[in-house]
Amino acid sequence: MSQIVSIPKGTRDFSPAVMQKREFIFETVKSVFRLFGYQPLETPSMENLTTLLGKYGDEGDKLLFRILNSGDFMSSIPQELNQRQFDYKKLSPHICEKGLRYDLTVPFARFVVMNKNEIQFPFKRYQIQPVWRADRPQKGRYREFYQCDVDVIGSKSMLNEFELLLILDKVFEKLRLNVTVHINNRKILDGILQSFQVENKLTDVAIAIDKLDKIGLDAVLEELSQKGIEPDIARKLMEIISMKDNPEALLDKIQPIVQNTDSGRQGLSELKELYKYISINEFKLNVLFDLSLARGLDYYTGAIFEVKSDDVKMGSICGGGRYDNLTGFFGLPDMSGVGISFGADRIFDVMNELNLFPENIGSTTTVLFLNFGLKETEYLFPLLQAIRNVGIASEVYPDHDKMKKQLNYANRKKIPFVIIAGEDEVNNGMFTLKNMSSGEQKTLTLEEIINELEGE
Amino acid sequence: MSQIVSIPKGTRDFSPAVMQKREFIFETVKSVFRLFGYQPLETPSMENLTTLLGKYGDEGDKLLFRILNSGDFMSSIPQELNQRQFDYKKLSPHICEKGLRYDLTVPFARFVVMNKNEIQFPFKRYQIQPVWRADRPQKGRYREFYQCDVDVIGSKSMLNEFELLLILDKVFEKLRLNVTVHINNRKILDGILQSFQVENKLTDVAIAIDKLDKIGLDAVLEELSQKGIEPDIARKLMEIISMKDNPEALLDKIQPIVQNTDSGRQGLSELKELYKYISINEFKLNVLFDLSLARGLDYYTGAIFEVKSDDVKMGSICGGGRYDNLTGFFGLPDMSGVGISFGADRIFDVMNELNLFPENIGSTTTVLFLNFGLKETEYLFPLLQAIRNVGIASEVYPDHDKMKKQLNYANRKKIPFVIIAGEDEVNNGMFTLKNMSSGEQKTLTLEEIINELEGE
Repeated sequence: MSQIVSIPKGTRDFSPAVMQKREFIFETVKSVFRLFGYQPLETPSMENLTTLLGKYGDEGDKLLFRILNSGDFMSSIPQELNQRQFDYKKLSPHICEKGLRYDLTVPFARFVVMNKNEIQFPFKRYQIQPVWRADRPQKGRYREFYQCDVDVIGSKSMLNEFELLLILDKVFEKLRLNVTVHINNRKILDGILQSFQVENKLTDVAIAIDKLDKIGLDAVLEELSQKGIEPDIARKLMEIISMKDNPEALLDKIQPIVQNTDSGRQGLSELKELYKYISINEFKLNVLFDLSLARGLDYYTGAIFEVKSDDVKMGSICGGGRYDNLTGFFGLPDMSGVGISFGADRIFDVMNELNLFPENIGSTTTVLFLNFGLKETEYLFPLLQAIRNVGIASEVYPDHDKMKKQLNYANRKKIPFVIIAGEDEVNNGMFTLKNMSSGEQKTLTLEEIINELEGE
Repeated sequence: MSQIVSIPKGTRDFSPAVMQKREFIFETVKSVFRLFGYQPLETPSMENLTTLLGKYGDEGDKLLFRILNSGDFMSSIPQELNQRQFDYKKLSPHICEKGLRYDLTVPFARFVVMNKNEIQFPFKRYQIQPVWRADRPQKGRYREFYQCDVDVIGSKSMLNEFELLLILDKVFEKLRLNVTVHINNRKILDGILQSFQVENKLTDVAIAIDKLDKIGLDAVLEELSQKGIEPDIARKLMEIISMKDNPEALLDKIQPIVQNTDSGRQGLSELKELYKYISINEFKLNVLFDLSLARGLDYYTGAIFEVKSDDVKMGSICGGGRYDNLTGFFGLPDMSGVGISFGADRIFDVMNELNLFPENIGSTTTVLFLNFGLKETEYLFPLLQAIRNVGIASEVYPDHDKMKKQLNYANRKKIPFVIIAGEDEVNNGMFTLKNMSSGEQKTLTLEEIINELEGE
């Protein structure tokens, strides 16, 4: 019956040591989300493919994991398809109705539309769940990974963007990470394109520019040309978005370029409003107005954000932006939303590399009771119950093994205290408490042990 | 672009109100698991089908959700299959390599085998994650649902079973649920069958008996007969397992029936040992020795458990047991484990029906700042920061809407306090604090507001 055991590529097990670090990240972001008045939401792992398809661009659609229909999935194949030797692209829609979610934003929009009559708008929710993408696995890129999303929908105010920046500031202060948030607005990119009389290419251009860090300028120019942008215009575009300066100066430079376009004027006005809010607070993170920020997703229409570590070279660890019409796909137009997604896995990798997790993460048990048999277990039971009743995590070694083996278990699990109740202790009504790091042993009564442990 | 929006049948969205109740359950079980020295583990949602198939019986295999291979999934179909008109059962293994996990126990066993050299045994882990089953959706049965599992592997001691019963007792005390835990041992059932010279039918018989509550005695007898058990023997078997009495009396009655079989003697001895431990503690839950408990899963070999609500008629809300050879499937024999799985969704349903969730669940925001425009927002910002810095959840209404609308938002979100800083307050350097339940308003300084809110 034996077989070679493995897990699907791009997926991971999280051992207790790793889980405890991950939970530190999740608890931190969750506590900040709650502090800002966001409420939890969860949606199913599976969505109907009609919900998911067409929201993430063609490349996104290819990365969806599809779930085979249950039972005789071949029974609903149309007859004419049978004769075409089963082109997989044509077959797939007939044998799969459901897919695993690709992100948390589209399911959120779908939830909002389905529950619009019960929701109090503006609706502020956070959502911490895994997402799945059939991407080529590589360093820092997984096929199953957690997103921690915080979104508000039903308000166009730039105060929402500002609050999200405050959330970023608070989270990364708590995690002790030095980061820079890059800010841009898709409408400005749209304005630049319109100023060159380039129409309806915003998504293509954004997807190409988004790869600048990864593939370099020449490859981006090549991709822009493939998408039908004249080489001259592409070069000018890349020059403009590569301009660096402080926010005011940059806005002054961009103004003459985009001021004759509706999108450009609106983008400028939104960014200026956001900067008024930003100036209210002294941010601990670096705030950078970055015209070259584009984001790869279809649905952004306004402000966009990405966060990068200042100390570790890695892709963005958070990203987000404003989407004016995501619910429109599902029949509810005019419901603007904005949100940010924390990439827990990459944040973990950065914190691990910088050794930023608190020291005391790693042990869950404070006290191990050694096992000397049934009679002794009966004797120690009232103490065990009393210790647990004051909330101190403790366990009994389950087998009557050699003492050395039991102590070794305590050491390897980093359990700081061991309680010994052998024949002597039972006869005297006492317990021996051993401090595993100092090696010190004290023989004490039940009450004394509890006092001693509570004082720790 | 608009379309009818829905989610796959058998799946659910969890709104903030529901999520907060669910998190109460998860936090409760998690805190108890930790108190008993169990450590967190997570495994991927997808497993290779080779890992999952054959572990849950034929009925379980049919309920696995399969994931279509990425890319041209038809390219690896063997030529001979093409000519057989694609029988879906024959096609499926060629187009799907992965499936969604069906429970948390098999992935746990797989993890243990893959990491046996790093793990400190006995290995105590808890795991709280969703599982998926393509079951017919019905009341209390979902296609995606959470399990909260706690298992220890690498120890055969009945002390482990006892500790699990203590965990059950603590969890249901904290959740304020009256429950009964039914206990049996598969070896006794095996012993009874062997005493009738029925061999190799334990799983079939267990699966049939497991349905007794749902389908009734006649249907179980019918199923037993279909599985090749003589009607006379089936009737006698059902009479034996339906005996009710206190544990000692019941053990005395069963002893002469099974004492000539190895399994029976071992089952009796295990149950007796467990009862010695059980007698150490005064349980708040009811402990019931129930010979008719069989459990529907293939892999149990020893003690088995099920927990039922005393107050709400519903299937079991927890179940578990000992498995002596689950890791053997993956090449690591002789690694006995025992565990219990809490069904969070059914526990939720029971608690909801009995109205057992704490009153204060439901609001995450303590203070709402009304919005009177940019200048006023700038004015209130230091107070907002100060309130958040002391850990009080607060939000600013994002739009400069009519005051009535903003107050309505606070009411519907059950936010207890509102802070008003309009022109008057700005000019006087004060803030107005409104208690939303009493309607009382006070005009205070920044420090006074914080004192007032911290005193709440």
